[in-house]
Amino acid sequence: MEIREKIIEEAKAQFIKNGVRSVTMDDIAQNLSISKRTIYENFRDKNELLKSCLESMWNEQARRNEEIIKGAPNVIEAIFQLMQIAINAIRTYNPLFALDLKKYHPAVWKETSLRNEEMGFNQMYRLVRKGINENLFRKNINVEIVTKILQEQLKALSDEKAFPKDKYKLDVVFENMIINFIRGIATAKGLEIIDSLTD
Amino acid sequence: MEIREKIIEEAKAQFIKNGVRSVTMDDIAQNLSISKRTIYENFRDKNELLKSCLESMWNEQARRNEEIIKGAPNVIEAIFQLMQIAINAIRTYNPLFALDLKKYHPAVWKETSLRNEEMGFNQMYRLVRKGINENLFRKNINVEIVTKILQEQLKALSDEKAFPKDKYKLDVVFENMIINFIRGIATAKGLEIIDSLTD
Repeated sequence: MEIREKIIEEAKAQFIKNGVRSVTMDDIAQNLSISKRTIYENFRDKNELLKSCLESMWNEQARRNEEIIKGAPNVIEAIFQLMQIAINAIRTYNPLFALDLKKYHPAVWKETSLRNEEMGFNQMYRLVRKGINENLFRKNINVEIVTKILQEQLKALSDEKAFPKDKYKLDVVFENMIINFIRGIATAKGLEIIDSLTD
Repeated sequence: MEIREKIIEEAKAQFIKNGVRSVTMDDIAQNLSISKRTIYENFRDKNELLKSCLESMWNEQARRNEEIIKGAPNVIEAIFQLMQIAINAIRTYNPLFALDLKKYHPAVWKETSLRNEEMGFNQMYRLVRKGINENLFRKNINVEIVTKILQEQLKALSDEKAFPKDKYKLDVVFENMIINFIRGIATAKGLEIIDSLTD
């Protein structure tokens, strides 16, 4: 691994664990046993390092999702696997990372949100179309509209006013959203697979 | 009909047709061939008249919905009838009424929104429970969570950022939300009825 990638991997691990604010360039340099100067030769400032970390996370996620989709026997099993990964992430996620991004790097946060939204939409859109081709989702649904409706539900999930964390378990709400969404658009054949995976 | 109710009926009709701002107490008095003083003997000011009109609309709507629910052979047919009424309302609705409320009577608007939300939630909650009793909706769903998820979708419907009116036909989005929602929670018996009503 090149030093640039090593720095990104180390920074990602520390940001995810401790948030962005409390992690210094010194912390990262120390853990890698390199000089702070080496970091600054590769990244102008913390903001640039942060952006590279997010870029790397997106690529990783996209690659992993692609593999799952290719490896699953059908689109519904792929969605269940992706759902399980997201549920684990919701359960173990340290909110400090997102909170710090929002508070101390609002421009990066905004770009991140837009990018996540766009990636999520495109991925779900492709999965719904794939499901139609596999005769698991109904042919007569409006793919654009149903995907957009799901996206708005997922946005509400991170809206503290809509689903306050002291009242709702977000992993349970998320699971309900995904399962009712795919049941809602499924064919009889699709429902059989969903039943076999949920019962 | 007592004069107080006549005033409310006339005001409602004018508010819905022309918005709140442009309708004066004079307009209402004139159409009823009564004096403005008679209006002020019954309502302290336009704000009080407005609140009485909203109260009356809510009661009317609740009564009408109750009748539909009682009259329908099952909960799914009731939901389809309620959906059709809402679709017609979306299509013919003059947005000026809500816009004026929001802009010139923000306190009334806020109360109205909260009340509509609460009424909508309670009604849908009861319908979902009824559907479970009729074996049309699945027993193992979390009624509170699925109802809340639907409510958040419906809120997104009136969010111009989520569903910009120049890009989405709101009646079509609404229909998709309702039908995919009930398909998502339906039993096999429920799906048969939904299919018979949509094919």
